[in-house]
Amino acid sequence: MSVTNATFLSPQEAALAVRYRALRARTRRLAAPLSPEDAQVQSMHDASPTKWHLAHTTWFFVRFVLDDPSAIPEGWARLLNSYYTGAGESHPRLLRGLLTRPTLEQVLAWRDDVDARVLRVLEEGRLDDARLVALRMGMQHEEQHQELLLTDIKHALWCNPLGPAYREDLPAPHSAPGRADPGVRWLHRDETVVEIGAPRWPDDGAEFAFDIESPRHRVLVPAHAIAQRPVTNAEFAEFIADGGYDTPTLWLADGWDLAQREGWRRPLYWHEDGVREFTLGGWRERDPHAPVCHLCQYEADAFARWAGARLPTEAEWEMAASACEVDGNFADDDAPLHTVAPRPAVDADAPADMFGNAWEWTCSPYVAYPGFRVLPGILGEYNGKFMSGQVVLRGGSCATPRGHVRASYRNFFPPSARWQFAGLRLAKDAG
Amino acid sequence: MSVTNATFLSPQEAALAVRYRALRARTRRLAAPLSPEDAQVQSMHDASPTKWHLAHTTWFFVRFVLDDPSAIPEGWARLLNSYYTGAGESHPRLLRGLLTRPTLEQVLAWRDDVDARVLRVLEEGRLDDARLVALRMGMQHEEQHQELLLTDIKHALWCNPLGPAYREDLPAPHSAPGRADPGVRWLHRDETVVEIGAPRWPDDGAEFAFDIESPRHRVLVPAHAIAQRPVTNAEFAEFIADGGYDTPTLWLADGWDLAQREGWRRPLYWHEDGVREFTLGGWRERDPHAPVCHLCQYEADAFARWAGARLPTEAEWEMAASACEVDGNFADDDAPLHTVAPRPAVDADAPADMFGNAWEWTCSPYVAYPGFRVLPGILGEYNGKFMSGQVVLRGGSCATPRGHVRASYRNFFPPSARWQFAGLRLAKDAG
Amino acid sequence: MSVTNATFLSPQEAALAVRYRALRARTRRLAAPLSPEDAQVQSMHDASPTKWHLAHTTWFFVRFVLDDPSAIPEGWARLLNSYYTGAGESHPRLLRGLLTRPTLEQVLAWRDDVDARVLRVLEEGRLDDARLVALRMGMQHEEQHQELLLTDIKHALWCNPLGPAYREDLPAPHSAPGRADPGVRWLHRDETVVEIGAPRWPDDGAEFAFDIESPRHRVLVPAHAIAQRPVTNAEFAEFIADGGYDTPTLWLADGWDLAQREGWRRPLYWHEDGVREFTLGGWRERDPHAPVCHLCQYEADAFARWAGARLPTEAEWEMAASACEVDGNFADDDAPLHTVAPRPAVDADAPADMFGNAWEWTCSPYVAYPGFRVLPGILGEYNGKFMSGQVVLRGGSCATPRGHVRASYRNFFPPSARWQFAGLRLAKDAG
Amino acid sequence: MSVTNATFLSPQEAALAVRYRALRARTRRLAAPLSPEDAQVQSMHDASPTKWHLAHTTWFFVRFVLDDPSAIPEGWARLLNSYYTGAGESHPRLLRGLLTRPTLEQVLAWRDDVDARVLRVLEEGRLDDARLVALRMGMQHEEQHQELLLTDIKHALWCNPLGPAYREDLPAPHSAPGRADPGVRWLHRDETVVEIGAPRWPDDGAEFAFDIESPRHRVLVPAHAIAQRPVTNAEFAEFIADGGYDTPTLWLADGWDLAQREGWRRPLYWHEDGVREFTLGGWRERDPHAPVCHLCQYEADAFARWAGARLPTEAEWEMAASACEVDGNFADDDAPLHTVAPRPAVDADAPADMFGNAWEWTCSPYVAYPGFRVLPGILGEYNGKFMSGQVVLRGGSCATPRGHVRASYRNFFPPSARWQFAGLRLAKDAG
Repeated sequence: MSVTNATFLSPQEAALAVRYRALRARTRRLAAPLSPEDAQVQSMHDASPTKWHLAHTTWFFVRFVLDDPSAIPEGWARLLNSYYTGAGESHPRLLRGLLTRPTLEQVLAWRDDVDARVLRVLEEGRLDDARLVALRMGMQHEEQHQELLLTDIKHALWCNPLGPAYREDLPAPHSAPGRADPGVRWLHRDETVVEIGAPRWPDDGAEFAFDIESPRHRVLVPAHAIAQRPVTNAEFAEFIADGGYDTPTLWLADGWDLAQREGWRRPLYWHEDGVREFTLGGWRERDPHAPVCHLCQYEADAFARWAGARLPTEAEWEMAASACEVDGNFADDDAPLHTVAPRPAVDADAPADMFGNAWEWTCSPYVAYPGFRVLPGILGEYNGKFMSGQVVLRGGSCATPRGHVRASYRNFFPPSARWQFAGLRLAKDAG
Repeated sequence: MSVTNATFLSPQEAALAVRYRALRARTRRLAAPLSPEDAQVQSMHDASPTKWHLAHTTWFFVRFVLDDPSAIPEGWARLLNSYYTGAGESHPRLLRGLLTRPTLEQVLAWRDDVDARVLRVLEEGRLDDARLVALRMGMQHEEQHQELLLTDIKHALWCNPLGPAYREDLPAPHSAPGRADPGVRWLHRDETVVEIGAPRWPDDGAEFAFDIESPRHRVLVPAHAIAQRPVTNAEFAEFIADGGYDTPTLWLADGWDLAQREGWRRPLYWHEDGVREFTLGGWRERDPHAPVCHLCQYEADAFARWAGARLPTEAEWEMAASACEVDGNFADDDAPLHTVAPRPAVDADAPADMFGNAWEWTCSPYVAYPGFRVLPGILGEYNGKFMSGQVVLRGGSCATPRGHVRASYRNFFPPSARWQFAGLRLAKDAG
Repeated sequence: MSVTNATFLSPQEAALAVRYRALRARTRRLAAPLSPEDAQVQSMHDASPTKWHLAHTTWFFVRFVLDDPSAIPEGWARLLNSYYTGAGESHPRLLRGLLTRPTLEQVLAWRDDVDARVLRVLEEGRLDDARLVALRMGMQHEEQHQELLLTDIKHALWCNPLGPAYREDLPAPHSAPGRADPGVRWLHRDETVVEIGAPRWPDDGAEFAFDIESPRHRVLVPAHAIAQRPVTNAEFAEFIADGGYDTPTLWLADGWDLAQREGWRRPLYWHEDGVREFTLGGWRERDPHAPVCHLCQYEADAFARWAGARLPTEAEWEMAASACEVDGNFADDDAPLHTVAPRPAVDADAPADMFGNAWEWTCSPYVAYPGFRVLPGILGEYNGKFMSGQVVLRGGSCATPRGHVRASYRNFFPPSARWQFAGLRLAKDAG
Repeated sequence: MSVTNATFLSPQEAALAVRYRALRARTRRLAAPLSPEDAQVQSMHDASPTKWHLAHTTWFFVRFVLDDPSAIPEGWARLLNSYYTGAGESHPRLLRGLLTRPTLEQVLAWRDDVDARVLRVLEEGRLDDARLVALRMGMQHEEQHQELLLTDIKHALWCNPLGPAYREDLPAPHSAPGRADPGVRWLHRDETVVEIGAPRWPDDGAEFAFDIESPRHRVLVPAHAIAQRPVTNAEFAEFIADGGYDTPTLWLADGWDLAQREGWRRPLYWHEDGVREFTLGGWRERDPHAPVCHLCQYEADAFARWAGARLPTEAEWEMAASACEVDGNFADDDAPLHTVAPRPAVDADAPADMFGNAWEWTCSPYVAYPGFRVLPGILGEYNGKFMSGQVVLRGGSCATPRGHVRASYRNFFPPSARWQFAGLRLAKDAG
């Protein structure tokens, strides 16, 4: 009798079940404002349909936790495998938006079914350690897709000349009127050897971390200065006004070529009226004091060069962040889902707004830490095979679920990616 | 008082209102088996979403009959204009599948609203001659989109590895078992000067015809022979078995290049198992006696060359068809929506199956008849500007609404188009 | 003893030998102004290097006349086969410009060697009828490549910002200053059944004609009018000034799309200064009275629509031309190799400038005449397999060798082709 | 009087003049085996014609040393500017192969003219410090193009099915027959903080180094092991035999996608016969003991993963190399211009073959060192703007001029680049 089993459920497993339920419910809440049509659409190669996010995250639990082929309807496995060659064939990414079946309704029903199965084996204590690890991974994985669901649907809605909002009821971002911008303050650091990264999970540490955050290791960080706060919309507007998009010597060559080919004149979601930007609440007036976002790394890098500075390395960033509480503008249920003017730093020498609001591009290519090992088995394909041509971002954004990131967290995207909530913080060499 | 007006409604206008209602209701019936997701998707450049077909045909009546901007919601006009430069901007065709708003539900509600308005002005006798012409055009236009709706959704569903059916309840195509194929019979014709085409509508004739079917004109048709019936699935399978897809000398150069680039081994919807083909009822066994369909003109032409014959010219086809009743396997409500073995000819010298079942590729490029004039105004863009690089097809198909085609009807597609219900009938030079 | 053989050489064969020598020498003269670098380059997919033209025309004689594999150096056959699948593999067309070996010098030496062999077998009377046919074909083939050599190298030189001339010593085109343009005169023709085309060569006629010109056959030509002379540079400049390149309703849809995508504002070789055009003599001032050239069919068609006219059919053109002497501005050794103001018509009702100067686009797609048969054997691939998506041009150009064309001659190119010396003559429906 | 000036020429300047003459003469010797056609061709986007290398390197001296516009013929500047936005417009890279003028002969004559001018101002002592810096830069720049000239022409000749050799007289690579391969020996290193990089030239050091090699700086190198010698052809053949090109889990995702799209089964220049490879001496038998080359980084990385190892970081590589003499198989006049079996290490713990033979891919993305500064002025565009998406290679190759590289030298290419002489050396994390 399941009641009996539940009696013996360990506190950790009980807590895990609670968190699993909450996580899965939150994904549904994120999809709730969307019509079946919205959930169907794939607006570009890098994005996926909402429906696919809902189904793929569920497939992950079936494949790696339940490991029960009967739990997945005939023919769906191939459609929902993203990129795990060890898990068999996968449908071409670019064609996800053509899969009208299963319908949204069928996918949601399947989610319920899988949730019931997962909770049953969890609450009956039938998951061994390896499956518990996969379950925790799957929950982190779904949190990542919660953010992608938002960035992908934002892009899809923006493609529509009608400019529909994802949610009409989002709190409008606002700043105290007339607030003077105090200018950026530089925090100076001497050369030092620090430890960065996270202990290997689950072997060396109890706290979850992705394989690519590990091992914790020493690194020599040279003397440098880092800006106390991120770059704002107002500052980026100055860059534009000063001809930033017309000056090739500010840009990396690849970035300049791409910007010319695609005719970039401003960040992706800025309106040509110079005033508005596209948000998950539709077209809204930009807050000059909020961190700029939806830059690609090429734009962030060009801005930094224009400002006589550079992007921070990820070690510099992590060193600064490790002293900060992991708090900020995250994607809570009542959150604006857009960047807002950050709270001031706790003291003059502390960095502000390291977490939430906008991911911060670093100048660090996404590569392995010394001693890096991929996860065993098929999950070894999770992160490691993408270590080419991408760049590290740090700190999370207004679309990241609260609790998902930490100081050692490494996000990564190609330097050309503009559709994420990504901005920058400046750094400088010493001397 | 509208009752009074209705009293004086002419019999022609009354009949028109009845037909309008039936037409619009039929389009909705065609869309009824589809989910909002199905109706959203655009599987390739040449296809459009069902939702877009539903909305665009409605836009046509608003734009050209009501001519009332207030009858179209803010921002929709640009999305629903297909290609009329005279009607303002149009959204890029390739991006139609990204328009998740308006939703299917909103589009259907708008259809009802527009229908009420159109019927009101029609029944109140408030449409002048020009608007009545536009109304009739719009109804023909919607019939064309009824067929495209079917061919486009068939392609979209075929793109899904799950192979879903448009309708599970379609009558299965079937032939009398063991029926022997009698071989093709040739109908010989001497050189003659005939009249083809239709009188200009509405100026010179009461029967509707598109501008490109006119004027009726003399043409010299050389001596030739034409096959009594279309090419069958069984005959096309022989072509394949004989290496048809491996023999470059059977193909037009452009066709061969395309076939190699895309790796063609069989018609678009034939399964590699050699037995099944994809239909609107899902994957089904092929009927060897049914006309082959979903060929592009390159494939039809290669088959004809292999058979020691050629495709007919459109004049040859029309000369043969003009003696036949316009009857056949059309897209009635209870129709199979797939080709079926045709009924035998009425007598030994009469062509069989000229109408319905599968469009028949001709060897005639789609160009103007001598004396061709486009319609006046914006509707002049309807057909004429596409007279480049396309080929004429004749006779209608199992997806064509009954009553839509006639002997002079000219359909046209690029020679590479495979997703229409198109096959061929052979012809030969005399001597 | 070869002297003896030569003694018995028939007058026809002797004449053929003389013409062969002259033809081959002329090709070398055409290549003489070019450096080895010039002769190497392929500036676009549709063009070929001069060196390749020199070698491929030679390969033709080896393959179809000598039919002796030992006469072709190891490995060259595949490089020089253009598109004859019956003659084995061919090197991809787009990569011809990468073949630095054989060198120009080696190719020229090989030409000499092959010429010696061809003349030997010809003069020794060792060619049977089939080979004599192939020899004559090969000579016509080489004349076609003489024109392509000029159009291809013109494009290549135009790609160079230095704007080098093919020949600095070309006579400048010039018109009598201040010559008033008399406006176009229309020649009216009633409906008639005429014979067009050429008797099949060599079976039905002694005069050479390509297979696609045959058979001679009856065609009904409706009543129409045709312009007495081609459209001039001055007239085309008016079209531009009147917004021709900005008015979508003047254009075929495919043409408009292409023009927008590529940003067309004027004919290919016209300078944006409004005065000069690129010629084989370099950048030169345009002659307003010379026929416009280097139009694609889309541009020609748009001009005609703007002028309230249309392009002629090929039957209309041939009917007009058959009364004219085949004379005009051809590519003689001392010719300008550019269009010049034409001589006036011989009388008020005779068409002028039907031959030479600029090819004239018709509105006729390139398809088979009734009763068309390809040549037997591999040469059957010469013309027939290209009957898709192309359009007929008539009359020859200033780059065509004198003697190459005739009233029945059919040239063909895709409607998008701009690098040929092609312009237009207007026509109109009667009434 | 110049004689007087020459009298006072400093020994350094005299030596510089000698080296300049030798350098420029060597470039001509490299081009000497090539026909004007060979020197014209550009076989892919990343490659340039030999003629362009000859001209562009000359342009560099004119632009940055002579700084005299009159020394460059009208119109050439734009054609020869590679990518310096500060130096005005540049012709699109992909179109370099279309520039048939200036001819090779003209370019060579211009080289002589420029050399005379450069030597005159140098020998007359008329170059200030900035120009002397530019002169030295230009000489390093030309050495880089000497290597590219070889790799680019190798690719162009390989594109020709005739497989022509760059030089027929190259010494054949050969190994002692039956030489047993001793297996790789690992050199272990403990964690350490080392200095890598070069002092800034010319400010902080007399020895030339590129800006990207500076500043010399401390870096923490973790404990690791590095292979004593590079990976051989025989070892790479084992990887292939073991299904290396069929096993996605060995590959970075981008590499796997590219390999599938392009159908890779072996290194670029290996013949499918399993025995031969394409060399600058034509098709030759592979030496199993020679270092494998013409790998892209994806292939090198996949091999390393298959071998249970990884690519070294550039710091690991430089630490190993700094103890070695800069000697090896470089592109001397009598060199094989291909990899050869390396000489054994000087002792058991010393790395072997760090210099010459084949560039060694590292796992280090090409980014700035801490404190990096670009050169002042337009030469600041030389290296810095390419710091995105590329990877560092170390050690030089058999196509690198002797004397060009050093332990701190950083070469960089995209991870997909296969046409350079690049192989790999394995490394491992400690423990």
